Amino acid sequence: MGMDKLLEKIAALQNPTVAGLDPKLSYIPEHIRAASYEKYGKTLEGAADALLAYNKGLIDALCDIVPAVKPQAAYYEMYGWQGVRTLAETIAYAREKGMYVITDGKRNDIGATMTAYAAAHLGTTDVEGEEVAAFGADALTVNGYLGTDGIAPLLEVCGKGNKGIFVLVKTSNPSSGELQDRKLEDGQTVYRAMGAMCEGWGEKLPGKYGYSGVGCVVGATYPAQLEELRAALPHTFFLVPGYGAQGGGAADVAPAFDKNGLGAIVNSSRGILCAWQKEKCDGADYAGAARREAIRMRDEIVGHIGKIVLP
Amino acid sequence: MGMDKLLEKIAALQNPTVAGLDPKLSYIPEHIRAASYEKYGKTLEGAADALLAYNKGLIDALCDIVPAVKPQAAYYEMYGWQGVRTLAETIAYAREKGMYVITDGKRNDIGATMTAYAAAHLGTTDVEGEEVAAFGADALTVNGYLGTDGIAPLLEVCGKGNKGIFVLVKTSNPSSGELQDRKLEDGQTVYRAMGAMCEGWGEKLPGKYGYSGVGCVVGATYPAQLEELRAALPHTFFLVPGYGAQGGGAADVAPAFDKNGLGAIVNSSRGILCAWQKEKCDGADYAGAARREAIRMRDEIVGHIGKIVLP
Repeated sequence: MGMDKLLEKIAALQNPTVAGLDPKLSYIPEHIRAASYEKYGKTLEGAADALLAYNKGLIDALCDIVPAVKPQAAYYEMYGWQGVRTLAETIAYAREKGMYVITDGKRNDIGATMTAYAAAHLGTTDVEGEEVAAFGADALTVNGYLGTDGIAPLLEVCGKGNKGIFVLVKTSNPSSGELQDRKLEDGQTVYRAMGAMCEGWGEKLPGKYGYSGVGCVVGATYPAQLEELRAALPHTFFLVPGYGAQGGGAADVAPAFDKNGLGAIVNSSRGILCAWQKEKCDGADYAGAARREAIRMRDEIVGHIGKIVLP
Repeated sequence: MGMDKLLEKIAALQNPTVAGLDPKLSYIPEHIRAASYEKYGKTLEGAADALLAYNKGLIDALCDIVPAVKPQAAYYEMYGWQGVRTLAETIAYAREKGMYVITDGKRNDIGATMTAYAAAHLGTTDVEGEEVAAFGADALTVNGYLGTDGIAPLLEVCGKGNKGIFVLVKTSNPSSGELQDRKLEDGQTVYRAMGAMCEGWGEKLPGKYGYSGVGCVVGATYPAQLEELRAALPHTFFLVPGYGAQGGGAADVAPAFDKNGLGAIVNSSRGILCAWQKEKCDGADYAGAARREAIRMRDEIVGHIGKIVLP
């Protein structure tokens, strides 16, 4: 149930990191773009084709060492429905290769509409009696501003299909405190109240390693809050963005982990996607550069947390 | 700037309502579905084709009396990338017919990622020097939980393209209060604090009729909060869901309007989409039934607020 599959994968690979697949044309080597434009022109179709080829190369290079990928929906929507098709194809390809897929969509709505999002991203859609998976990820990031009505439909789908969600609690950006750090009448912060709601929702999706199917998002850029929330939310697994390009380091993310080296998965997007540009290596070796950076990141983080053990 | 185009359309048609295009297969008359399945089978492709035909019929029936449509992204994503293509085609068709299009996506993220969402839904995407509109709506609903970093990229795109956003403030669902009604240390509610942020963001996008390009979402199911927020947020236009199926009536939404009959646009989705089923009329007349319900709703609301005048 819940995040068990993710935890098992993290332990098997001894790697608590996730590669963010947030592709932009400017990250993609010339030879890939040229091949796609040759087929489809310099169009959304051509761009979407280049994105897919680029992602497949990354997935091939990472799938035996990195447990999960996190495609960010915005970067696919930016390239139209053609880009969204690439999102669906990327998810399918990563799952074929055994990776756990977290669609980063930060979706939120209520009732029947949230049920539609749950069906779209984690469940199946009824087409005249046939159940079809539209996107079929393992987990989805969501925004809990609307309360339980916006989360309950997900819990049902997650319970049936062994899927998970990550709710935004304390985000990695500089302005996250404008609302999230505000103190409520009882003295607790908004992010802490949201975290407590996650623990509550998680009771519906218990996991066998102590973490429920309701995780939360806490930024690497706020290590004090990571530590506070790790203690306050013992059954809530963390998705930690903000490592690398946004400024968080391995020491910053260490408080997100428990004594077994579990409790969190740390995301890197640009660090991995643009490793070839940072290394200044040939674009033909972009996937190799991504793998080298993924290994460096893994070793750096595992160096801080030690061996990962399933309890 | 801002919402001016929407306000002008509302005044021209004397109709402060928006038709929510949240299509599900079960709302679509048999003859439309059969024609699509004949072409594409009972597949996501077939479903998406039926959705598009259904939407076009509705748009044709509503475009001379209803100023705007609000497609809800979840119902398109549920039918895969094929459904998302129908979203893009629905937006294009409604705009061709002169309607103002609000994509209800409740998108939220930070920095470069929010810039990607802004480009996707309101702006254009750079494909090797060509600027291409991926979805091209007039306005987008967004979630402000992440603070200014998640809103600033939208303001830039809105400023350039004369577009708008609607930020979730007090949503229509029963559990919206779990977070939104919590009181902060200074005694104001979370929703009020979010509303104040909208007024602040709106200063960057002033409109010529007093309302900025930053609107907010306040549910018809909370008339007291509508009244409170109308007084507190004089430059913030309201998108009001929750009329009809969710229980809000014309008297409930009246406090959302100012003395000129401006200040809000009221959404109905299922009420209009399923009017033919409620009327028990022939499916061939589904668009006529939608038009009759749209006129009834318009007349009911305008009966409460009087003539709409641009100041």
